Amino acid sequence: MVKIERLVNAIEPLNGAAMEAATRRLNSLTKPIGSLGVLEDLVIQLAGITGEVMPHVNSKMVIVMAGDHGVVAEGVSAAPQSVTPQMVYNFLNGGAAINVLAGLAGAQVKVVDIGVADPTLRHEKLISRKVSLGTANMTKGAAMSREQAIEALMIGVEAAGAEIEQGVQLLATGEMGIGNTTPSSAILAVYSDAALSVIVGPGVGLNSEGIDKKIQAIQTSLAVNQPDPADPIDVLAKVGGLEIAGMTGLILGAAARRTPIVIDGFISGASALLACKIAPRAKEYIIASHLSEEPGHKILLDAIDLEPMLRMRMRLGEGTGAALAFNVIEAATRIMREMATFEEAGVIMD
Amino acid sequence: MVKIERLVNAIEPLNGAAMEAATRRLNSLTKPIGSLGVLEDLVIQLAGITGEVMPHVNSKMVIVMAGDHGVVAEGVSAAPQSVTPQMVYNFLNGGAAINVLAGLAGAQVKVVDIGVADPTLRHEKLISRKVSLGTANMTKGAAMSREQAIEALMIGVEAAGAEIEQGVQLLATGEMGIGNTTPSSAILAVYSDAALSVIVGPGVGLNSEGIDKKIQAIQTSLAVNQPDPADPIDVLAKVGGLEIAGMTGLILGAAARRTPIVIDGFISGASALLACKIAPRAKEYIIASHLSEEPGHKILLDAIDLEPMLRMRMRLGEGTGAALAFNVIEAATRIMREMATFEEAGVIMD
Repeated sequence: MVKIERLVNAIEPLNGAAMEAATRRLNSLTKPIGSLGVLEDLVIQLAGITGEVMPHVNSKMVIVMAGDHGVVAEGVSAAPQSVTPQMVYNFLNGGAAINVLAGLAGAQVKVVDIGVADPTLRHEKLISRKVSLGTANMTKGAAMSREQAIEALMIGVEAAGAEIEQGVQLLATGEMGIGNTTPSSAILAVYSDAALSVIVGPGVGLNSEGIDKKIQAIQTSLAVNQPDPADPIDVLAKVGGLEIAGMTGLILGAAARRTPIVIDGFISGASALLACKIAPRAKEYIIASHLSEEPGHKILLDAIDLEPMLRMRMRLGEGTGAALAFNVIEAATRIMREMATFEEAGVIMD
Repeated sequence: MVKIERLVNAIEPLNGAAMEAATRRLNSLTKPIGSLGVLEDLVIQLAGITGEVMPHVNSKMVIVMAGDHGVVAEGVSAAPQSVTPQMVYNFLNGGAAINVLAGLAGAQVKVVDIGVADPTLRHEKLISRKVSLGTANMTKGAAMSREQAIEALMIGVEAAGAEIEQGVQLLATGEMGIGNTTPSSAILAVYSDAALSVIVGPGVGLNSEGIDKKIQAIQTSLAVNQPDPADPIDVLAKVGGLEIAGMTGLILGAAARRTPIVIDGFISGASALLACKIAPRAKEYIIASHLSEEPGHKILLDAIDLEPMLRMRMRLGEGTGAALAFNVIEAATRIMREMATFEEAGVIMD
């Protein structure tokens, strides 16, 4: 826990002076004050994070954390567990949606095996940091030990740190893990008054019978494990997942290194909720990308007080919504650097 | 009216066979069926519009229609009319938000003077098609004659046609015209049961006294002119604007040439509503970009049955929201062309 405490203490408040200077510059540009809405908010946030009045996000990366879930034994997913490693290979070979969308944004994709159940998973481009062959079935006991949860979280912190050191200026969370809307829903349930029937959705394509099984599995997991809301690491270990822990680490690691981090959909949102429970200041470093079709996602983002930019009815994960948002964030930085001021353009608003 | 009738008849239904083939291909790609939501809808729409199963939108353009409004004499705008030509020069010199956002999307910007009140407005890059020096004050009578409205509309049709002939594959509507949320609100009021107090917003920055004046001006305009909802050209002429007519023409012209057209915010939305009243089939060629802060915008888009992708709290106009959406539309076409199929990737979902 010393590591976690040190991490939390490393997350500093945003740079208020840079934010004020950014606001002044935005107000000098040829547009009604505040009329670019979220684009302006993004510039101000990036200024606060980086300390630069005209921030850059030239080097962008999605880090995809891949892990499996013992709870799939309860029939909570429409797709078989074998899809996790198959999709990891697809990411590494450049054929998945995340490769296409990151490519369009000029962003790299890195994939971390943090706990895929397939022991044969191997690829020269894969970052192999397997904590275990998937989590245990959380309906029978804790998904992970506390030590495993912290180990997985620190893998995320280190992954973020290593990339930031190499010059990455904008990070995003991505994930692959068949069954992972189930632990994500369980984490949300710990922190929300909303009923499971409202939180829980179809994931990649459960029917109503499947959703009933999923609700049942979550109820059982919560009853068996009694996760302690006051101890987010306890929640993460008992009803979370390895890739969820890894993404929680990515968020905290980015925040500790003053780097903006874009979160993707529902599962990334569960990681962000835990990150903000561990270190409330981390919230200021997070950029929400899209609102997914998963019904709990809005409840999750409201709980963190984040506002998504994109409404695409997407429900794929991988980091796809975050990658789409990269271009919007790039747009915000371009507005700041490239627009003419009122004085330069000779525009007199009043 | 013969011209308009010919235009309406030139708008054909989407290509159902291409849409079915596009859906089949989307369903073969390595993702749960439908999980990319709006990205998939966009690909299918583009396939229906272009007849191509793998559509391209390589050549993109925003056409900004600029015009002034006699109704500004009623104190309905927070900015003076002189800002219209000043901003036109800013567009032509590349310093405005639309230049930056279109540039990021790899799109061109063209500006049409369809009715700026400044008689001295001149620039080598400006397309000068001035119908009149702004509209008349619609609280005293019709904003335009029926002939002027048709002339302005046909300028838009021709502008779209000329660019499509030069190879443009994706068009967007943009506008500049101090005071133009007032005629846009009046057009919406003709077709909506919502109260003016719900429809009318601050535009670029009216205070509550200004909003009261604006509501008053719209009420007077509607009472004085009695626009006929069954005759959208009558509505356009009496309580519309030259740039609104021009954008209505852009939409109808793009649809008649089987070219997708992205609409921007509230004023573009008023043009789209009129375009769909003139030719209901035009709707299938329209892509909604963002939901603006102007309170009537959601009512407007609901009236056309369009769903915006972006929630940026923007209220600038110019085509800025549409330009931001260009990248999302490009993303949709890349997904279709670049993602691996289940067979290629060896992924077995069930």
